[in-house]
Amino acid sequence: MKKLLIINTGGTFNKQYNPIDGTLDVIQDSSIVDTILKKWLCEFEVLNIIGKDSLDMTTQDRMELLATINMSDYDDFIVIHGTDTMELTAEYLADAEIEKRIVLTGAMVPYSIDPTEAAANMASAIGYLQRQDNDGVYIAMNGVFGNYTKVKKDRVKGKFIYR
Amino acid sequence: MKKLLIINTGGTFNKQYNPIDGTLDVIQDSSIVDTILKKWLCEFEVLNIIGKDSLDMTTQDRMELLATINMSDYDDFIVIHGTDTMELTAEYLADAEIEKRIVLTGAMVPYSIDPTEAAANMASAIGYLQRQDNDGVYIAMNGVFGNYTKVKKDRVKGKFIYR
Amino acid sequence: MKKLLIINTGGTFNKQYNPIDGTLDVIQDSSIVDTILKKWLCEFEVLNIIGKDSLDMTTQDRMELLATINMSDYDDFIVIHGTDTMELTAEYLADAEIEKRIVLTGAMVPYSIDPTEAAANMASAIGYLQRQDNDGVYIAMNGVFGNYTKVKKDRVKGKFIYR
Amino acid sequence: MKKLLIINTGGTFNKQYNPIDGTLDVIQDSSIVDTILKKWLCEFEVLNIIGKDSLDMTTQDRMELLATINMSDYDDFIVIHGTDTMELTAEYLADAEIEKRIVLTGAMVPYSIDPTEAAANMASAIGYLQRQDNDGVYIAMNGVFGNYTKVKKDRVKGKFIYR
Repeated sequence: MKKLLIINTGGTFNKQYNPIDGTLDVIQDSSIVDTILKKWLCEFEVLNIIGKDSLDMTTQDRMELLATINMSDYDDFIVIHGTDTMELTAEYLADAEIEKRIVLTGAMVPYSIDPTEAAANMASAIGYLQRQDNDGVYIAMNGVFGNYTKVKKDRVKGKFIYR
Repeated sequence: MKKLLIINTGGTFNKQYNPIDGTLDVIQDSSIVDTILKKWLCEFEVLNIIGKDSLDMTTQDRMELLATINMSDYDDFIVIHGTDTMELTAEYLADAEIEKRIVLTGAMVPYSIDPTEAAANMASAIGYLQRQDNDGVYIAMNGVFGNYTKVKKDRVKGKFIYR
Repeated sequence: MKKLLIINTGGTFNKQYNPIDGTLDVIQDSSIVDTILKKWLCEFEVLNIIGKDSLDMTTQDRMELLATINMSDYDDFIVIHGTDTMELTAEYLADAEIEKRIVLTGAMVPYSIDPTEAAANMASAIGYLQRQDNDGVYIAMNGVFGNYTKVKKDRVKGKFIYR
Repeated sequence: MKKLLIINTGGTFNKQYNPIDGTLDVIQDSSIVDTILKKWLCEFEVLNIIGKDSLDMTTQDRMELLATINMSDYDDFIVIHGTDTMELTAEYLADAEIEKRIVLTGAMVPYSIDPTEAAANMASAIGYLQRQDNDGVYIAMNGVFGNYTKVKKDRVKGKFIYR
């Protein structure tokens, strides 16, 4: 089995309801990923960085993510990311032509609101990465898998599709 | 992307609380799998057969499963199965040396009681199967993946491990 | 046992996550109340009006609520209402000096995000109303009960308290 | 507001899935009640005794419950109890003619499997007790309330009804 690192950067996946002001906020730690791994009865290393809604992600943030991957001892990565700019970040990482495997995933519905989609996305990304031996940047979302140029968010249907 | 068939045979994955007599019963249709796919925002074909706790599975049931796979137009299968005899069924299927790819999965905790583990197991099996190109019988459970001879239920820890 | 009418006017109690635009919207029907009653294994008549976040409630809306209560054949009412202006609506209803019993309730956390608080608030209001024989306007929230002048939202603690 | 004591004696209300042996076991502490109170954003004193499925409750257990109520400084009690012998325990307590108010409640579905019914039953019992000023033994279940002689478990429908 491959060793892999889960890098959690924020996004809807990590949002939680704040009853004081009625908003959904990105939790600033890896507690959602930790909860999924605990309930899934397994362990993977998790690194928490950035912690933003993906609409707020800057080039500076993407540089931080790339540097984290480059400097890591791992060769295989799951990146949990907001859905709105997942493809942008994927392209940014792909342009760096790193000799590693990176699978981006995230959620349309926060895990804390309904756990199924977020847990399934992350778990499917981990399964896909196990047998993905070609260097590159991939997306695993809503049961579709592939190179980041093939998996796109369909904003009308509210889900990712393969094309 | 690969086309695949989900064959649902029952097991803890499909159990639901029956308030009249206080027992957990295996639901006799694919409603749990359908619910996960709907929430995961994707579609796969699902076939429902057997519908048993895996301790009650007979050789007759395993013959039915094997025949279903053999006669199917699909080459790639997810089999949802009870955990207690998952390895037995895997071995039975492997002995038939079919030129297809089969990933068995299931759950330690019923989806209807806590959805995370069951959804993650099934989704991780689907991700793994996407990139598994070698014919054979595999198990994907609790974040471990591999040939059925490598992934075993640890009855003390209450989860599947790789060895 | 008393016969009672549940009037659902909206508020956080009825909010649901909208994955297309990432917002929490007030559902425009009584599906949340219906779900609670079905799971609680009981039946009460439910009337759906207004359907607003309580910050958006106007005097016109409060007139509609008062008229609905006045013209109803029922003498005992549960009113599900947003928490931000629950006390204002309670005072408006109390000023009308109707010879009926009205218990307002609602939720700090949407039922669809975490069901416990919303279900407990509504059920506690129904239990309280069963034995409340004095005409007037009451609030039942977060395990505190009493005349609307005694039960207040504590905006710092994010819950209702008795004082 | 009345001060009240919650006495937790076990029953389906407190059952939790045990993934090692696939059974539903009564949790031997008050963690379920504590969870409900925390999510409901309120505090009540909770006492944990007996911890049994109500089919296993003995006369000795009922004596312990009666003694606990008799010796307590409280005058108002919620008793969480299994549904199968709730009426028997109610009658046992009523025969003692204590000058206190006792409301029995419980659940058809474990809180850990689906939280709505259990939370609603307990909360409705608390609301009912707030305004129940006559000494006696009552049952609050599934939206029906009354003297223990009036509220009965309907074993065919799988819920409590008023008659």
